[in-house]
Amino acid sequence: MDKEKLRTVIEGGVFHAIIQFLILASAVVFVFESDSAVWGLEAYTTHFIVLDWLFFILFSAEYILRVYIEPRKRDFIFSFYGIIDLLAILPSLFLLPGFRVLRVLRFLRVFRIFKATRFILAVDRLASALRGIQQELLALVILSLMLVYLAACGIHYFERDVQPEDFGTIIDSMWWAVVTLTTVGYGDVYPETAGGKVFTALVTLVGVGLIAIPSGLLASALTEARVEREMEEEEKESTEGDTNSG
Amino acid sequence: MDKEKLRTVIEGGVFHAIIQFLILASAVVFVFESDSAVWGLEAYTTHFIVLDWLFFILFSAEYILRVYIEPRKRDFIFSFYGIIDLLAILPSLFLLPGFRVLRVLRFLRVFRIFKATRFILAVDRLASALRGIQQELLALVILSLMLVYLAACGIHYFERDVQPEDFGTIIDSMWWAVVTLTTVGYGDVYPETAGGKVFTALVTLVGVGLIAIPSGLLASALTEARVEREMEEEEKESTEGDTNSG
Amino acid sequence: MDKEKLRTVIEGGVFHAIIQFLILASAVVFVFESDSAVWGLEAYTTHFIVLDWLFFILFSAEYILRVYIEPRKRDFIFSFYGIIDLLAILPSLFLLPGFRVLRVLRFLRVFRIFKATRFILAVDRLASALRGIQQELLALVILSLMLVYLAACGIHYFERDVQPEDFGTIIDSMWWAVVTLTTVGYGDVYPETAGGKVFTALVTLVGVGLIAIPSGLLASALTEARVEREMEEEEKESTEGDTNSG
Amino acid sequence: MDKEKLRTVIEGGVFHAIIQFLILASAVVFVFESDSAVWGLEAYTTHFIVLDWLFFILFSAEYILRVYIEPRKRDFIFSFYGIIDLLAILPSLFLLPGFRVLRVLRFLRVFRIFKATRFILAVDRLASALRGIQQELLALVILSLMLVYLAACGIHYFERDVQPEDFGTIIDSMWWAVVTLTTVGYGDVYPETAGGKVFTALVTLVGVGLIAIPSGLLASALTEARVEREMEEEEKESTEGDTNSG
Repeated sequence: MDKEKLRTVIEGGVFHAIIQFLILASAVVFVFESDSAVWGLEAYTTHFIVLDWLFFILFSAEYILRVYIEPRKRDFIFSFYGIIDLLAILPSLFLLPGFRVLRVLRFLRVFRIFKATRFILAVDRLASALRGIQQELLALVILSLMLVYLAACGIHYFERDVQPEDFGTIIDSMWWAVVTLTTVGYGDVYPETAGGKVFTALVTLVGVGLIAIPSGLLASALTEARVEREMEEEEKESTEGDTNSG
Repeated sequence: MDKEKLRTVIEGGVFHAIIQFLILASAVVFVFESDSAVWGLEAYTTHFIVLDWLFFILFSAEYILRVYIEPRKRDFIFSFYGIIDLLAILPSLFLLPGFRVLRVLRFLRVFRIFKATRFILAVDRLASALRGIQQELLALVILSLMLVYLAACGIHYFERDVQPEDFGTIIDSMWWAVVTLTTVGYGDVYPETAGGKVFTALVTLVGVGLIAIPSGLLASALTEARVEREMEEEEKESTEGDTNSG
Repeated sequence: MDKEKLRTVIEGGVFHAIIQFLILASAVVFVFESDSAVWGLEAYTTHFIVLDWLFFILFSAEYILRVYIEPRKRDFIFSFYGIIDLLAILPSLFLLPGFRVLRVLRFLRVFRIFKATRFILAVDRLASALRGIQQELLALVILSLMLVYLAACGIHYFERDVQPEDFGTIIDSMWWAVVTLTTVGYGDVYPETAGGKVFTALVTLVGVGLIAIPSGLLASALTEARVEREMEEEEKESTEGDTNSG
Repeated sequence: MDKEKLRTVIEGGVFHAIIQFLILASAVVFVFESDSAVWGLEAYTTHFIVLDWLFFILFSAEYILRVYIEPRKRDFIFSFYGIIDLLAILPSLFLLPGFRVLRVLRFLRVFRIFKATRFILAVDRLASALRGIQQELLALVILSLMLVYLAACGIHYFERDVQPEDFGTIIDSMWWAVVTLTTVGYGDVYPETAGGKVFTALVTLVGVGLIAIPSGLLASALTEARVEREMEEEEKESTEGDTNSG
């Protein structure tokens, strides 16, 4: 079959719809297979394995086709989607007799869901905006980890004597720090001493401020990208105007 | 009565105020009717039904008037507000003897409240800004669902043995994923294993980042719309200036 | 004393510092007086009353001075700070013998703290930015109330049979709606049925989106104000440039 | 050794990597030392003290080197990083026999982690953006404290009779105010009266709005900085264009 013709098919809507359906079906089967014991579906174990082999064959075929039509094969194989497509098929191989020990790694099939991001166009735009602020985001992640560390050390100091079970070590206190700074606040651990409560007030004030930063960063990055595009267009128009008037 | 005159009345402040009052009254009556059994108001059941017929008649009259004054009747009937206005009156019909089975659908009267959005001007502006980023928002919804799926699979893996009641199946674990990723954190389910806690820390870090994206998107979309308007005005002025100086 | 001289004193740093100290002291005394019974400070009741009369006299003097130096007295009296200043002194009058019944209204002294906003310059800038988006913010408040109403009706439908104590009426269910949509999530009430959990997932998705809107609005309003200022300055420069080159 | 040569070494990647490793190692040792009693590592107490002396020596050497290569030594010593570097070494001195009483202050070694911010470039950019809105952020902090005060007074009024344990004093009620306004919502304290619940609904509405402000502020500050840079570049180009065409 002609490569160009094949590419048209693979980049066409019907092929996309089929792959999207397969990804969704594979996720649903994954859940059913995983929950089968609890729901009394053990009788269908073989069905799940057959279905998984089917997904393996179809996703493998898709992968081979994508590599085949790609002129720069190496680039595709080491691209984000190339690796995701490979990861989507490899874990099924652990069903083979020789890989019995690694069977638990079939769990990795869960990442098949990432194949779906290829079909959401806006994801690309979001990703490129996030790439523009990746240094700031990395800095925020490091600052967040530092804040978790400092918060855990602080609350450990205040609460270790009253609640040795939950705050007896700094490591244990980190769980409180994560749950509090993300404002999840399950309520399984919380300070009881006056000092611990005042410290929590200070730490959450900083934490809420830290959480506010990424959306501010993203907003300005997206706005900049748009204003730049806007200005380029304006400049182009203005240049054309100059040429015409010259 | 003259159509144009009627339109002036319908688009006037008095008519608006009456409809707004009816919407609010209808919501209040809905709550009282629903809660009547608990509050010992069963004696007033007939009053509630009479009131509901009254709302039915008045909203129907409003709907007929709106269709009547509209030159493009079809467009109005299938517009957002046309459908809302129809949905506001239909559920009351299930009180008729022939629809006894569907009586439970009278619950749909709750959506009458949406009629009120017509009178909030800023809602239009917000809606148009959100339309400008609808692809990104859709992508975020899909990514959020993917994150819920992955978080549920992960926490199920860590917690299923320790807390089979809450994390025994992936489906059950999704409840934890929703409550955690939205940072609601009721505290009815939370990880207890060290692995589950570390996994939660990672997942909430991503979740908090995901929650930050929509406000960033909206900010840049609103800013772009404003800057564009600004520039158009400037350009207009500048063109006028050129003409004057020529 | 000269009015102009007096104005210089009142708008000067020393006077500001004294008033700020009085506001803070008044808030601290308010807390101590209120908590005195629990802390066994009943012996100091008279001291608190004397202190309150002192604050009354000093804040009254400040109010009279401010009215005195103001050329447009009426405007000041009915301005935001004029009303706040009046509210700061009136509640103390309820200590007089004739007002014994209204003594509970002395609680209103708590609003004295608002006097402090006068001294925070950035509050003005924030307030003016918020005024620029007040229609949108009002729309958001109304939409939030609608969402609380719809969420309460929905969860009541799903949970009323299983948890009649907490979700037996729509009014009761609203408490859950508020706690969930603000992502506070105390954990005193939460859905237990599968339907209620799915409904919660949908409602919180919308709720988290709604919460994202105000910061987006504010960002774009602030940016617009800044870009406008920027452009005005540029235009001015450009006009000057044209004049120079002419 | 030549000062310039030394500076090149200190500002080079190898030196940076070593210091970063030391900071991380020092944090890890701090956690292990602190948690040693719980983990049964008391036997290694001497090891921890030796390690701490090692960190003391190495960080002291770094500090001395940084001061040595700096031409304006005074400026460096009183700069943010100068103080942090000093604070990173001082607490270890409390191990000396003469300072036995202050040994508890060795806890301050936890702030060594701040040394790491020197190596995250984006932190500088974030800090400069935050400096541009520091007045607004300070105003927000003060407004937040005022809201905590008012919320505590209000909930105390509604809940003191029903829950004297948690809301018996305004001071105690502040803990609820902090946990609620940051939307952490542990669930250890929450209103039970109808009035307290309605009050909570109002207060969280304001609180959620307040939390939205910093990200809006930051977004507009970052956008302004970028647009300004953009315009400066444009102006420069435009000026060059004029010169070329002249």
